[in-house]
Amino acid sequence: VTDRDDKLPLLDMDPAAFRAAAHAVVEVMADYLETIESRAVFPPIEPGSLRPLFPAAAPESPEPLEAILNDYHRLVEPNATQWQHPGFLAYFATTASGPGILGEMLTAAIGQNPMLWRTSPIGTELEEVVVDWLRQALGLPDGFDGLLTDTASTSTLIGLAAAREAAGTGAATRGLAGRGDLGAGLRVYASAEVHSSVEKACMTLGLGQSSLVRIPTNDRFEMWPEALAGAIATDRAAGFRPIAVVATIGTTSSTSVDPVAAIAEIASRERLWLHVDAAYAGVVAMLPARRAPFDGWERADSIVVNPHKWLFTPLDASLLLTRRMSELRAAFSLVPEYLRTLDRESPVRDYNEFTPQLGRRFRALKLWVQLRWFGLEGLRRRIERHIELAAGLAATIGADPDWELLAPVPFSTVCFRWRPVALAGRAGDPEIAERLDVANAAIMDAVNRTGEVFLSHTRLAGAFTIRVAVGNLRTEARHVERAWELLRAAAAEQVVPVQR
Amino acid sequence: VTDRDDKLPLLDMDPAAFRAAAHAVVEVMADYLETIESRAVFPPIEPGSLRPLFPAAAPESPEPLEAILNDYHRLVEPNATQWQHPGFLAYFATTASGPGILGEMLTAAIGQNPMLWRTSPIGTELEEVVVDWLRQALGLPDGFDGLLTDTASTSTLIGLAAAREAAGTGAATRGLAGRGDLGAGLRVYASAEVHSSVEKACMTLGLGQSSLVRIPTNDRFEMWPEALAGAIATDRAAGFRPIAVVATIGTTSSTSVDPVAAIAEIASRERLWLHVDAAYAGVVAMLPARRAPFDGWERADSIVVNPHKWLFTPLDASLLLTRRMSELRAAFSLVPEYLRTLDRESPVRDYNEFTPQLGRRFRALKLWVQLRWFGLEGLRRRIERHIELAAGLAATIGADPDWELLAPVPFSTVCFRWRPVALAGRAGDPEIAERLDVANAAIMDAVNRTGEVFLSHTRLAGAFTIRVAVGNLRTEARHVERAWELLRAAAAEQVVPVQR
Repeated sequence: VTDRDDKLPLLDMDPAAFRAAAHAVVEVMADYLETIESRAVFPPIEPGSLRPLFPAAAPESPEPLEAILNDYHRLVEPNATQWQHPGFLAYFATTASGPGILGEMLTAAIGQNPMLWRTSPIGTELEEVVVDWLRQALGLPDGFDGLLTDTASTSTLIGLAAAREAAGTGAATRGLAGRGDLGAGLRVYASAEVHSSVEKACMTLGLGQSSLVRIPTNDRFEMWPEALAGAIATDRAAGFRPIAVVATIGTTSSTSVDPVAAIAEIASRERLWLHVDAAYAGVVAMLPARRAPFDGWERADSIVVNPHKWLFTPLDASLLLTRRMSELRAAFSLVPEYLRTLDRESPVRDYNEFTPQLGRRFRALKLWVQLRWFGLEGLRRRIERHIELAAGLAATIGADPDWELLAPVPFSTVCFRWRPVALAGRAGDPEIAERLDVANAAIMDAVNRTGEVFLSHTRLAGAFTIRVAVGNLRTEARHVERAWELLRAAAAEQVVPVQR
Repeated sequence: VTDRDDKLPLLDMDPAAFRAAAHAVVEVMADYLETIESRAVFPPIEPGSLRPLFPAAAPESPEPLEAILNDYHRLVEPNATQWQHPGFLAYFATTASGPGILGEMLTAAIGQNPMLWRTSPIGTELEEVVVDWLRQALGLPDGFDGLLTDTASTSTLIGLAAAREAAGTGAATRGLAGRGDLGAGLRVYASAEVHSSVEKACMTLGLGQSSLVRIPTNDRFEMWPEALAGAIATDRAAGFRPIAVVATIGTTSSTSVDPVAAIAEIASRERLWLHVDAAYAGVVAMLPARRAPFDGWERADSIVVNPHKWLFTPLDASLLLTRRMSELRAAFSLVPEYLRTLDRESPVRDYNEFTPQLGRRFRALKLWVQLRWFGLEGLRRRIERHIELAAGLAATIGADPDWELLAPVPFSTVCFRWRPVALAGRAGDPEIAERLDVANAAIMDAVNRTGEVFLSHTRLAGAFTIRVAVGNLRTEARHVERAWELLRAAAAEQVVPVQR
């Protein structure tokens, strides 16, 4: 790479040099993906060990691309958590599919900012196209419109901000502080298993963590509608103003499914905004035979489904669908003069009017590439396969007397723990429970240290719970089987005294 | 492309096919960038004309990559607003540099989510590295720490959310509604020229648009510190609780510079959080000889500078620096069990604790590639060149009796209008003023219709103002000169009666 500043005008990389460099980078990318299984899913390093490997200050002079790519290979690749590894079974997977990566490459080169129609006509209208393609694929009626955001956190925040306006608080204009007309405060309802993003949205929106009322769940971790109705009544009697209910289809801990139809009925009766968090599991609605858990979600005011989870789209891409775009606009629309365009005389869509951010990435492009390359049928078959892999593991665990499933498996995530058969009747004993927690944490840690697979945990009914979440595009049956082998091997090393 | 579903397992694109496809996509990207000047900067299309060109529903079956890339070339490229075109002089430029695009390619392939250290050790620690590289380059003291966000809107929202906590409101936990201890409400101060993102943050955070007090500016569009002090005193007397002041270095309309040192003095005296919006102009602080406008910003509690504006980084990348990370954590930290890791025993950095979002892109990577490829000196020279190009245009306009500058030019943006010399003394006449507005809108529209350059406008002191904002990495002197030629040619077509 010889095209340096002292020989060329002060512009971008020379076009021919860019072409060559981009081809070199493709080799790095393709090599990485082709050899991904040779790496530890989670690297054997400690916090704070990487920063000292880099210079303390940015270089003054340009460096050659070769040096940068060498350092990338040496310092970046091996110290990543390998989300692209087929053994990544932790959290919920975000794999970047090949076509999704191609879409990101095009996105970077074309450099759009679809904040206004005028700043990206294609970015705006292709977003309308792709949002509607996804809506139809999910089986939702055409009253739903929507947009793409960065993350489920943002989508949920938008939903709750719209709820705040729909409740007539005038929060966007008048704020929430110093007002005597909001009673004892506002209230949002969700199950005890709801994702932290809902609580965070309450913090951000000025509702506060205290505004989130956690409704108890049954032993399948599903919200009790009766408890919801009761909580609303109690709050109203105490002077609070309920504004929204969040129902989850596929909670983060156990992927449980709230009874959406019953909750929708209550929300409708109480005139509350219903937001459905289907960030992980929503794509299952693309499979008509598996739509039962989604019964009632068509009555939601807003729904979030994340393509960057189980639709294999590179981070970031979250789909927010809503029947009430005008309430989103009430929550976020501002049109200062420098953003006013002559286009505003026509009914133009300027997406920034519906989001807390102004600038926006052209996220529709990668989804368009991906939806066409896989086809809906190709995506459905992959999702179905993941559900089958999880069902197979659940059956295996359920049949092993030394292990127990800790939650139903409605989608592709299995929650379980090691509990030797000799302790089967005594797991309720606090001392045994504590020892099982320690043992299962040690089992998970030992499995993760092999580098072959990567698991994460949660707590269900107080117990340390290992999760195997299938959803990585590259995961095959052999990876799930290997996880099970490693778990049993690690458990064999554990000693929990059967008798005191 | 023959590797389709019926012949292969249900995985990702075959690795060899991905390699070939990515090389094909590089050709598309490089061709686009190499021929960018052959395109109209803004395409000659009307809103609503693109959506009908796409199928109404996603395809059921996979489509070949060739078909997708053909449609990309046919439908996407020509209908983009060409932000990469050197004639893009509208808004503030977001150009994606070659090395920035290479960084995005690597980012897509390695698929990180640095929400926790554990979910991306390198994503986390390289962010620490790059944030500190940028802090030093900007000349800020090492008391500043920070993070990368998607946009300035988010960075500013974070700053004001932290201000809300720092003021002792307990908003994150208790919310703002239904409380008697917040007086008449909270107040945020900014100049009348402040960017809409501050107002939007007030809407989102539950402070409301009414919480934003717009302080008058002088005839250079700079905040009057005396008016700020007066407004705070008046509000306190009326029972409001002031929490923050936003000072802008480089406003969006005119790129004016608030007197930061004087404002910092007031903020300090009044114990208010000082947020500095330097989203556009902040990079100029990389040039030691040009740091005068930044005097006092080292006293800010938080500062936003956008690499995706004038540092040539692909969208999205916003830098938020702060001396008070703990207040950011107070505003946004939540650690549910499924995000709890064994790492938390060590002082690990989990960046999601400082942001409204949980999931995060690996934005540090492209910045690291770019900072090394250009070197700080290479970036400084490019920024300096843009300032010189703008100064040259401003001198030309200032010397032409038929045109007038409408604001000082502290950075790289020139604000002006056509005002034939015969009307020089009569521009205050409302009828003349109205005709000048119409004429200048027509001039800008005519220039934009040529497709050679793309300009946007604002209003300054009520007058329609054309802006030429230099900041595109590929802009050369000839593009700015051509813009001036086109403006004069369009003005020559205008008829504004000199005498009634």
